[in-house]
Amino acid sequence: MAKAPCQEHPQKVLGWAAVDKSGTLSPFHFSRRENGDDDVTVKIQYCGVCHSDLHLAKNDWGFTNYPVVPGHEIVGAVTKVGSNVNKFKVGDRVGVGVIVDSCRSCECCQQDLENYCPQVIFTYNSHSKDGSKTYGGYSDFIVVDQRFVLRFPEGLPSDAGAPLLCAGITVYSPMKYYGMTEPGKHLGVAGLGGLGHIAVKLGKAFGLKVTVISSSPRKEAEAIQRLGADSFLVTSDLVKMKAAFGTMDYIIDTVSAVHPLAPLISLLKLNGKLVTVGLPDKPLELPIFPLVLGRKLVGGSDVGGMKETQEMLDFCAMHNIAADIELIRMEEINTAMERLAKSDVKYRFVIDVGNSLPSRY
Amino acid sequence: MAKAPCQEHPQKVLGWAAVDKSGTLSPFHFSRRENGDDDVTVKIQYCGVCHSDLHLAKNDWGFTNYPVVPGHEIVGAVTKVGSNVNKFKVGDRVGVGVIVDSCRSCECCQQDLENYCPQVIFTYNSHSKDGSKTYGGYSDFIVVDQRFVLRFPEGLPSDAGAPLLCAGITVYSPMKYYGMTEPGKHLGVAGLGGLGHIAVKLGKAFGLKVTVISSSPRKEAEAIQRLGADSFLVTSDLVKMKAAFGTMDYIIDTVSAVHPLAPLISLLKLNGKLVTVGLPDKPLELPIFPLVLGRKLVGGSDVGGMKETQEMLDFCAMHNIAADIELIRMEEINTAMERLAKSDVKYRFVIDVGNSLPSRY
Repeated sequence: MAKAPCQEHPQKVLGWAAVDKSGTLSPFHFSRRENGDDDVTVKIQYCGVCHSDLHLAKNDWGFTNYPVVPGHEIVGAVTKVGSNVNKFKVGDRVGVGVIVDSCRSCECCQQDLENYCPQVIFTYNSHSKDGSKTYGGYSDFIVVDQRFVLRFPEGLPSDAGAPLLCAGITVYSPMKYYGMTEPGKHLGVAGLGGLGHIAVKLGKAFGLKVTVISSSPRKEAEAIQRLGADSFLVTSDLVKMKAAFGTMDYIIDTVSAVHPLAPLISLLKLNGKLVTVGLPDKPLELPIFPLVLGRKLVGGSDVGGMKETQEMLDFCAMHNIAADIELIRMEEINTAMERLAKSDVKYRFVIDVGNSLPSRY
Repeated sequence: MAKAPCQEHPQKVLGWAAVDKSGTLSPFHFSRRENGDDDVTVKIQYCGVCHSDLHLAKNDWGFTNYPVVPGHEIVGAVTKVGSNVNKFKVGDRVGVGVIVDSCRSCECCQQDLENYCPQVIFTYNSHSKDGSKTYGGYSDFIVVDQRFVLRFPEGLPSDAGAPLLCAGITVYSPMKYYGMTEPGKHLGVAGLGGLGHIAVKLGKAFGLKVTVISSSPRKEAEAIQRLGADSFLVTSDLVKMKAAFGTMDYIIDTVSAVHPLAPLISLLKLNGKLVTVGLPDKPLELPIFPLVLGRKLVGGSDVGGMKETQEMLDFCAMHNIAADIELIRMEEINTAMERLAKSDVKYRFVIDVGNSLPSRY
């Protein structure tokens, strides 16, 4: 018979888990492995609340394995290192993102694309190589192989920097891969949430003209004054939308709800690129004529590998880029999830794990 | 009052036109401009029958302006040149493709992408700069500015070479633009018609492994033995389709009917590229998860500019690539169109215009 989550491994952990599709989170006792030779133990200080956490807590995508402890935007301090660990020492500030292991030998892993490894192990709702479930960062500590731990650069705040580990790399990686960083070009950012607001900041750091494309007119002032966007388009304003047709070189589409692609594709110039990083659970309608007549493309991208995630963190530190956050305590998570479901957050909730879960250290 | 088509210009022309959405073609008298200083007059010898000819004859896309004389895969001999013409002389064998003019000053035109010029003038069902309608190659001659006339290289047959002017460039251009020519990579060609069978030949010439993806099992032997494909996948054979998931680097999708993209996207590897060159008249369903999780893209492409079309003709001549054709007489066009509508052609009809329309020369 399988062991109970709190007895599988020697180290006891306290986290918050969803146990059914209500998605309601509550305290949950489980365990983690001993710190191995290649492992780093991280006392968690902050953990961002990603929209995926909400989807998985509620089993929106149909593959949640309850109980689930969400959280993959983790910042903390190293408290233990194994004998082979050469990248980190006790006391270092580090990050753990969306993935905690991979096969390490396939073509993807060899090309620093561990995120696309067919055997990738996600930080939560996945299985470790020993068969035990992985549990995420809504918990007091985590044990991770050093290859999957990131150096958190000086100057990057621990709380507002945490969301870079998923939201940041999710928009940074496609901008690099699809060549969306040429200074002076025009970037549209569809959806101004956790991912979108970081895409605006990255776009400006790359020297792009940035237009936010949103269904919420009330976000205009903030987009421009606080986040630094150059302009703002409300999708329901058909006159202004039409005037903007054919003006953008790139669009990052962060909208995770089902939505029409046609208006976004119309905004693109010849050779324009639309990259979707949201994960609508139903197919979107793709109009073929404008794609063909304008030699446009629609591409996807999923987080990034460890090397690129480190590069992104360093880039953000150099350009003073972090998320705009609302800091919450662990016990406020259910209210935060309700607000997140209504997009009522500016722009990322981050849990102050260190100050709201009892420490064992 | 507008002049009748046969009185607009001084030169009388005999062509075949569709006059209503039945799409039935019949003899039609119209006129063309005098050969101007920059013009080349081409006595038409052969004209390919493109699937667009059928769509436009029947007004499938809703923008046919009757009467319409189709035909944009034209090969013939120069019979007149204007005083400024330096690229061609009387007697030269030349080609005319999908476009016959453009603004010549915009960014597209300056980058040899006249095909994407917002003011591009198509070979038929378009308007010349003087306001008169353009009529295509189902006719005895055509007058075209030398910039839009192609040198037809030695060694390329006039009849089987004609379809390269639309079908050929339509698949060649995306292969170059999207970087689908790396030797040893695996190309899927979806749909084995006029475009698909040339894509197979181009793929082999670029040194790719080529798999034909078709709904017709009866095409297998020909695809492999006659066209040189390496393998063949029937879309309804779910076992073999599944076994081929994740094995292709690129797919050229030539299917112009509404069809599911999801199985094609599944065939792609990480970073795989699916380029659609067919023109379904309704949007296709685009599943986002596989696009994101495999960093795949779906792109479009529309014919090519004059420079690239010449490059393609030269490439085909060098590699002995031409279309597989069924040569018909002009008066057989309606039967041919009926067969084309049922995909009953191997693989392109070409009209022997020179021998079936009375010559005026």
